[in-house]
Amino acid sequence: MRTPRRRAKHPLSEEFERIAWLTRLFGSAVPLNGVTLGIGDDAAVLKGTTGEWIWTIDACVEDVHFRTKWLTGEELGWRSYNAALSDLAAMGARPIGALSSLALPATMDSKFWQGIARGQARAAKVLGCPVIGGNITRATQISIHTTAIGQTKSPILREGAQPSDEIWLVGNVGAAAAGLNVLMQVSEAKWDTDMRACVRAWRQPRALIAQGLALIGRAHSCIDISDGLSGDARHIANASNVALVLDEPSLVRAILPRVKRVAMRLGGSALDWALGGGEDYALLATGPARMRPAFARCIGTVQQGRGVWLERTPGERISVQAGFDHFAP
Amino acid sequence: MRTPRRRAKHPLSEEFERIAWLTRLFGSAVPLNGVTLGIGDDAAVLKGTTGEWIWTIDACVEDVHFRTKWLTGEELGWRSYNAALSDLAAMGARPIGALSSLALPATMDSKFWQGIARGQARAAKVLGCPVIGGNITRATQISIHTTAIGQTKSPILREGAQPSDEIWLVGNVGAAAAGLNVLMQVSEAKWDTDMRACVRAWRQPRALIAQGLALIGRAHSCIDISDGLSGDARHIANASNVALVLDEPSLVRAILPRVKRVAMRLGGSALDWALGGGEDYALLATGPARMRPAFARCIGTVQQGRGVWLERTPGERISVQAGFDHFAP
Repeated sequence: MRTPRRRAKHPLSEEFERIAWLTRLFGSAVPLNGVTLGIGDDAAVLKGTTGEWIWTIDACVEDVHFRTKWLTGEELGWRSYNAALSDLAAMGARPIGALSSLALPATMDSKFWQGIARGQARAAKVLGCPVIGGNITRATQISIHTTAIGQTKSPILREGAQPSDEIWLVGNVGAAAAGLNVLMQVSEAKWDTDMRACVRAWRQPRALIAQGLALIGRAHSCIDISDGLSGDARHIANASNVALVLDEPSLVRAILPRVKRVAMRLGGSALDWALGGGEDYALLATGPARMRPAFARCIGTVQQGRGVWLERTPGERISVQAGFDHFAP
Repeated sequence: MRTPRRRAKHPLSEEFERIAWLTRLFGSAVPLNGVTLGIGDDAAVLKGTTGEWIWTIDACVEDVHFRTKWLTGEELGWRSYNAALSDLAAMGARPIGALSSLALPATMDSKFWQGIARGQARAAKVLGCPVIGGNITRATQISIHTTAIGQTKSPILREGAQPSDEIWLVGNVGAAAAGLNVLMQVSEAKWDTDMRACVRAWRQPRALIAQGLALIGRAHSCIDISDGLSGDARHIANASNVALVLDEPSLVRAILPRVKRVAMRLGGSALDWALGGGEDYALLATGPARMRPAFARCIGTVQQGRGVWLERTPGERISVQAGFDHFAP
């Protein structure tokens, strides 16, 4: 079961090690013809004559990313589609189309799987990204693998962060994790307005396509927060060879009041949810202060060094490294 | 469990109905900007300035498409990659790159999943199609979803078959189904040379990329045989609004002698395996007799009408409609 957590003691998680291993293996296999960027960012980049094509794949698996009792089929379709397209948003790409590979239990009632497809179709409409093909297969577990292509004149990569950049948060963090905790701990009859709003944040995230496009020419680097702010910040830090220093007071201010209230009621930590909980599909970017768009909030600075740090007061910092790890014991 | 079968009595299978429903749903959702072809062929087609981009996704799921005791991790990686790229072969496309979405049990030993990746990397090298990204997630069941992009000057679609075309078979049919039956029915210690070769056909199929490219300008229509000759022939018949009449003696001659010998030993039908068993990833094409390439074998003719027919002697024909259905009870 997926639960948000923070594990500062295991900076090199098994999942990241696997990805590094795969990157070495596949990177050495074949020369990349017409491919300007391979493995390692939110998405692959293919050379085009009128800009770059951005190409991503994302999976949404039952009992890993969701439980069927937590959401309707339509919410599941919506959610998985937005999660996949969030990688395009992070690269500053305009969606072109998507393919959906559905694996469904043979016994699933048609209302649920048709709901999934309706949710995908609704997301496709809202995001301007039609489903133009796919695959359907049997499985014991529901899983939805969505691959999407977008186009951009200039992709925003993880590797461009520079010392003296601000760290920008676009969208919310912690609300989806709060919602997930509500779903796990509180029966629906007892939900208050705050809880309901947080559950909605988990069930109905929105890929920030317009914001990603608006970051082109402003941000030096960008990633979408799918596995947790701290873990995804680390991807930027590693790719750019810099340290990301999050300002705790600014981050705390960025957390929605309702998330803090839900944390109080559940005995959780809103800051932990913000740092460790993914699935809000906010964008994390870096760029010069004068280029910060109105919709972005400054939550720290890029500095020389390595790693991801949380600074409570100037000079007092702790390392916050890991996000969600699919293969942690 | 996936078993080859023939069901002439249920021409409209549940899987095909689902796909038709999805096609209507997604087709109406969003206008297709820059997309010349949406759902309904082996792959989607995206408009390019120097030809068309062909885009496909395919899934390989444990206990549906394979069992882990039937093959090594490396064979699984190889097989899933070739199966996905077979859709590019069918469209006459040259592969550019692929993304792999892996879902793996947390308990899987590293030898097996690294084997999967090594098999993918080897296939990538042989097929000239690098893995340039992907996704990795936990699941209870192994599944590999592979999305691939290729390029072609002129995609070969399912809809171009014309009355008086020959029906061409490129590659073998029935060998993989024979191998699958051996795996299910005969313990490895008892395999003879024929059985071993058929098992190899199932474990190590090869996407016919070069042949697909060579069909451009020759074939009017093409599909890869992944779900069974009869079912895949039906896709061409439906898309082209014609009847495909398979000549039984020609088809029987096209079946490898070793497949017939294995059928005899197992009490199976080589013709049934050829018609109903997919996973050889042969190509089925149609085109004028004078354009038939040396590597293609004529196994019938396209005629006016509807459906797929097996003709034993002139005038004596039976309907053979269905391939493998993922959702048949």
